[in-house]
Amino acid sequence: MALQERGIKSRNLILRAAAEVFDERGYDSASTTEILERSGLTRGALYHHFPSKEAIAVALLTVHGEAVDVPAQAVKLQAVIDHTFDFAFRLQRDPVLRACVRLAVEQTSFRRHAFTPYQQSSAAVERLLGQAQEQGELLPGLDLAEAAAMITGTFTGIQVMSQVQTGRADLPERVGMMWRFLLPGLVNPGMIGRLRLTADPAPAELSGAVRESARS
Amino acid sequence: MALQERGIKSRNLILRAAAEVFDERGYDSASTTEILERSGLTRGALYHHFPSKEAIAVALLTVHGEAVDVPAQAVKLQAVIDHTFDFAFRLQRDPVLRACVRLAVEQTSFRRHAFTPYQQSSAAVERLLGQAQEQGELLPGLDLAEAAAMITGTFTGIQVMSQVQTGRADLPERVGMMWRFLLPGLVNPGMIGRLRLTADPAPAELSGAVRESARS
Repeated sequence: MALQERGIKSRNLILRAAAEVFDERGYDSASTTEILERSGLTRGALYHHFPSKEAIAVALLTVHGEAVDVPAQAVKLQAVIDHTFDFAFRLQRDPVLRACVRLAVEQTSFRRHAFTPYQQSSAAVERLLGQAQEQGELLPGLDLAEAAAMITGTFTGIQVMSQVQTGRADLPERVGMMWRFLLPGLVNPGMIGRLRLTADPAPAELSGAVRESARS
Repeated sequence: MALQERGIKSRNLILRAAAEVFDERGYDSASTTEILERSGLTRGALYHHFPSKEAIAVALLTVHGEAVDVPAQAVKLQAVIDHTFDFAFRLQRDPVLRACVRLAVEQTSFRRHAFTPYQQSSAAVERLLGQAQEQGELLPGLDLAEAAAMITGTFTGIQVMSQVQTGRADLPERVGMMWRFLLPGLVNPGMIGRLRLTADPAPAELSGAVRESARS
């Protein structure tokens, strides 16, 4: 294995181990020693990649940024809806994304960085809403920045409640509920019947399979 | 001062000190030593009232239960709306309520108790929605339990985002935004213009004054 390739592998091992520890314990209770033990690497390797626990957490948030990439769709609001279902499925399966969300939701000493994921999510949703507006999908006069903040905020609360009450087992159903309540305040009445408010099973299963194979 | 009265005063000093520490550090990082130091009481007095940190946190959640008492209103949905604004103002001012919310939102070792505040809030909202439905305020066929869960979940997410982005300074405006987006999926179109989507200033200021005098 080339040196560079080994470096990338070590970095990913650290990020995955850190994500698990942050997801289970939260930022303040996570120790670099535990992250080190789970990664199976040496302390030297850890510090080669990341000078501090904070630096690891900042790196994890970039993963969140990548997770807001949304596949293209003819109906732009369907792309927003599919994105929330995809995010819900990934939260159920992926400790890296769960760690990002926990870092963003909890009032830890890391919190001053936690603005980023909300901005990333809101900005991605607002871009899609802009396209939806151009296509005449939305109610006239809708404030896109507000609508994007509303969708991001509602998803945040829905996923916190689902995490408390069912360990996120019912998150996809709650996302469907969220859209049934939000759509009348967002889209043209004629659009409502045209939107699918359940997960598009194909891409979620596919990305799950890709993640499984990437893991092994 | 009578013995019983002194006991109630000590108990309240402990709860207030604990609320401040839980609000600032979260459950897992809070120590009974710090709670003790802030309360100004002896360790004996602390353990007389509460056998453990967990017992203090459970007692704090009963305060949350009392906070979901909603004043009567002719228009029942207005009572739900006023309750969310009142809750927002109290979150800005009252460390006890902030501690309850932090205990409910974060994935600490206390989390197994954290179901309670969501149940209390959802149940109170669902009761009011039932009355609103009887008065013909709501869209026909609305699932009241779902609507109550949606309102509670949305408020949760809105307040997390407001806390991250502005330290809850813009929470009342965000609550107004939340209602503008939610109402079309909840109420009869004819109701929307009849509802006030800003805080009713009188009761919030009054309860603030009462709390200030109770504190001194």
